[in-house]
Amino acid sequence: MALRSKFDPVLQGLDKNFRLTKYTSLHGGGCKVPNDVLHKLLEDLGQSQYKEEQFMGGMIMPRLGIGMDTCVIPLRFGGLSLLQTTDFFYPLVDDPYMMGKIACANVLSDMYAMGAIECDNMLMLLGVSSKFSEKERDTIVPLIIRGFRDCAEEAGTSVTGGQTVLNPWCLIGGVATAVCQPNEYIMPDNAVPGDVLVLTKPLGTQVACNAHQWLEQVQDKWNRIKLIVTEEDIEKAYQDAMFIMSRLNRTAAQLMHQYGSHGATDVTGFGILGHAKNLVKQQRNEVNFIIHNLPCINKMASIARACGNMFGLLQGTSAETSGGLLICMPREDAAKYCVEIKRVEGHQAWIIGVVEKGDRTARIIDKPRVIEVETLEDGTVQSVPPTSTPRRNSTQLKTPISPQLQQHHRLNNQKSLEPPHNRLPTQISQSQVQPTNNHHISHPSVTNAATIQDHHIAHIADVSQHETVQMQQVGVQDSQSYHQQQIQQQSQYRPHQP
Amino acid sequence: MALRSKFDPVLQGLDKNFRLTKYTSLHGGGCKVPNDVLHKLLEDLGQSQYKEEQFMGGMIMPRLGIGMDTCVIPLRFGGLSLLQTTDFFYPLVDDPYMMGKIACANVLSDMYAMGAIECDNMLMLLGVSSKFSEKERDTIVPLIIRGFRDCAEEAGTSVTGGQTVLNPWCLIGGVATAVCQPNEYIMPDNAVPGDVLVLTKPLGTQVACNAHQWLEQVQDKWNRIKLIVTEEDIEKAYQDAMFIMSRLNRTAAQLMHQYGSHGATDVTGFGILGHAKNLVKQQRNEVNFIIHNLPCINKMASIARACGNMFGLLQGTSAETSGGLLICMPREDAAKYCVEIKRVEGHQAWIIGVVEKGDRTARIIDKPRVIEVETLEDGTVQSVPPTSTPRRNSTQLKTPISPQLQQHHRLNNQKSLEPPHNRLPTQISQSQVQPTNNHHISHPSVTNAATIQDHHIAHIADVSQHETVQMQQVGVQDSQSYHQQQIQQQSQYRPHQP
Repeated sequence: MALRSKFDPVLQGLDKNFRLTKYTSLHGGGCKVPNDVLHKLLEDLGQSQYKEEQFMGGMIMPRLGIGMDTCVIPLRFGGLSLLQTTDFFYPLVDDPYMMGKIACANVLSDMYAMGAIECDNMLMLLGVSSKFSEKERDTIVPLIIRGFRDCAEEAGTSVTGGQTVLNPWCLIGGVATAVCQPNEYIMPDNAVPGDVLVLTKPLGTQVACNAHQWLEQVQDKWNRIKLIVTEEDIEKAYQDAMFIMSRLNRTAAQLMHQYGSHGATDVTGFGILGHAKNLVKQQRNEVNFIIHNLPCINKMASIARACGNMFGLLQGTSAETSGGLLICMPREDAAKYCVEIKRVEGHQAWIIGVVEKGDRTARIIDKPRVIEVETLEDGTVQSVPPTSTPRRNSTQLKTPISPQLQQHHRLNNQKSLEPPHNRLPTQISQSQVQPTNNHHISHPSVTNAATIQDHHIAHIADVSQHETVQMQQVGVQDSQSYHQQQIQQQSQYRPHQP
Repeated sequence: MALRSKFDPVLQGLDKNFRLTKYTSLHGGGCKVPNDVLHKLLEDLGQSQYKEEQFMGGMIMPRLGIGMDTCVIPLRFGGLSLLQTTDFFYPLVDDPYMMGKIACANVLSDMYAMGAIECDNMLMLLGVSSKFSEKERDTIVPLIIRGFRDCAEEAGTSVTGGQTVLNPWCLIGGVATAVCQPNEYIMPDNAVPGDVLVLTKPLGTQVACNAHQWLEQVQDKWNRIKLIVTEEDIEKAYQDAMFIMSRLNRTAAQLMHQYGSHGATDVTGFGILGHAKNLVKQQRNEVNFIIHNLPCINKMASIARACGNMFGLLQGTSAETSGGLLICMPREDAAKYCVEIKRVEGHQAWIIGVVEKGDRTARIIDKPRVIEVETLEDGTVQSVPPTSTPRRNSTQLKTPISPQLQQHHRLNNQKSLEPPHNRLPTQISQSQVQPTNNHHISHPSVTNAATIQDHHIAHIADVSQHETVQMQQVGVQDSQSYHQQQIQQQSQYRPHQP
């Protein structure tokens, strides 16, 4: 990924204080109507349409209605189905081009959650803020459109229409549509006990975007977190979040076919737990989803903890925008899937939980493991970099951070509100990370203390404080041994048997 | 049409002053970004996509992009195409159920303009006003949804998904999608000189909705028009507008196939002239569209005149919501089309202009003829009722209007700002309405003075003040002779040869 320089309103002929995110009071996925309210409001659209089968032309055709991200409609022609989704929201980043890309990636993500990788058409939905000056409108809106279009092109599709209205808040979104043969999509209803849950992007996009706004605009909130994180941390997290949100889940969708996915959803406005709950309700089998690991953009968990329940990041309710796919897969396939996604596009995916026999509920364990994640200089997203690729500098760093400053930050971090088991260990021996008993299988191994010091990612669990010690992605010296180790470890991964 | 009683917030447990239209500052199609600005903003989406042909699977497949209402995307399967459209806007009527119906009919209208009558799927786009109280939200939103759903059902389709966000303004709209064989839709690019223009619904929906708001809420604006129209006129026009906007253009679309339509668009936010201009630009042949007649909801032209250029109704720029189809058709077919649409669904359609050789521009003649239109008690929309069906009373009329009051209104109307040639003649002889010379063919005939007095629809043109005397729909004694006369007259209709 080519590093994108920060959006500068002055370079665009706008006032230096122009911020796109000021043209709304709600941001990104946070603008969604609460899940329970929504279901009540949508009652009238009829539960009869809620995942039914339909007899058409001699074939049983699946049909998926309201409640999931994408609807599946049987067509009159030769077993084809129409897959369709829409999403729109408000600016959550200040770079209009990136905002356009994110909106487009976010809409397509619903389609990718169904394993449909060929989008036949996109429409763009635009609300031009009635508070924009003419100059602002003529500068900002084309940038948003260009970002949206570029992302659609990246996805191999194009934008052929849409609607543009004036609105108090700036609004951006779209519609994605695909006409598919039965083998081109995966109905999200086939999870079985023994499956695991895979997540393809880290959480914490809303926390990163909000923290960035605080840094610039909200002094009292910034004061609340400035002992925990530095300005550079926030700039880095914000850049990482923009990159993560604008990334397509297309490879993730493609590989779902190859590795036998039993169904997936994408993580957006209701947070990982909300979407897990929606997905588990769709299942044919009587299953529960239990989430043990929460991969989060670096430092966002610390911010969330410092802010009480404000974000709900660790409770799984923090809104995400253009989040990862949450996929149910056979355990062995999941390990290979994570390796393959990394091989193809370089980014890490995580096994974050298990599918158990149950009554179609989803939950996060009492003290989930936070996996810190960041974008490396080579543009890949990792929990711990598999090689010694140097950490990618934020574009915000006018000057390199001095070793003194680094030391200062480290000290600040240690004074933070993080619970002790999340503090950075300075050295971990191989023996510390072997499985300890039958209940706690596949303890993570961390083999490179230098990497740990550089990347602050390995949070070694205090076993006594956890229900279960869960699988964690690890950092190793080189890609090859990393891959082998991953396959080995992930295939050892077993659900906690109470 | 069963008469719908007025929406009463108190019956819903809401404050008596609750008005849905207060939850926005822009109404209906009026929220559109101006046409020229829009084209500038959308430049980046690429003119290359703007109506191109695409070679697919051995066939030339038409492709229609941004600029027109509905996009046409060739699919990978057996010559099928994807037709898709979206539209959303803000409340323009206070009845939430009717608002839902109107929003749905409005979206489908784009599809019907392409002659596609089978919609495979609908998505609903909802912005729940952040200013609604919880009680308001839980009352209003389900009613909007129910209206939207009922209209979709009426159209033989269903709503299977969508997006719901919080927004300062209440927002409602949708997406309609059809997968079609080549013979199931009509590309809107084949007008030829000699065609005429047909319109399937009267204009003036925005004027009616605004005037209704003035009556209730804006004293100074109401004072401006209260000498021209009565409260009852406004209530009737508002009810008529709601009914007209919620009506589907589906029959109109179906008959386009039967009567050889050369292409159509639907009239919405840019007004009839704006949409005529968009349509003429799409034409393969070098043609112009000349509009001579403006069918308008009864009294709305008078209000528009009294308000200067505020609405642009007579200039063709007044925004419409869920307006009629504007169709290019061979002259003879157009006459039969109008008769057939009346036979099938009871509503009148009008020939409003001609297609001439030209440079792809559209205009309205200097002094267009206004055709006053209203909804009769039997629920049909007519310029002059073909039978003696009594005028439908507005639900607002607490007591029947006394003959004295009627006389009073008539006097008021005569004192109005209408130019003399639009005043109501008390008696017109058959001889007055025969063609007078070669340049002014097919002068309108009006044969029933009683009908005229009752319905105030026949505005006899002052020939000296007009570029051309145009065909006008007429009132006759009974349906059968009316139909015969219509065919005869409309087939006499010829474009003005300069």
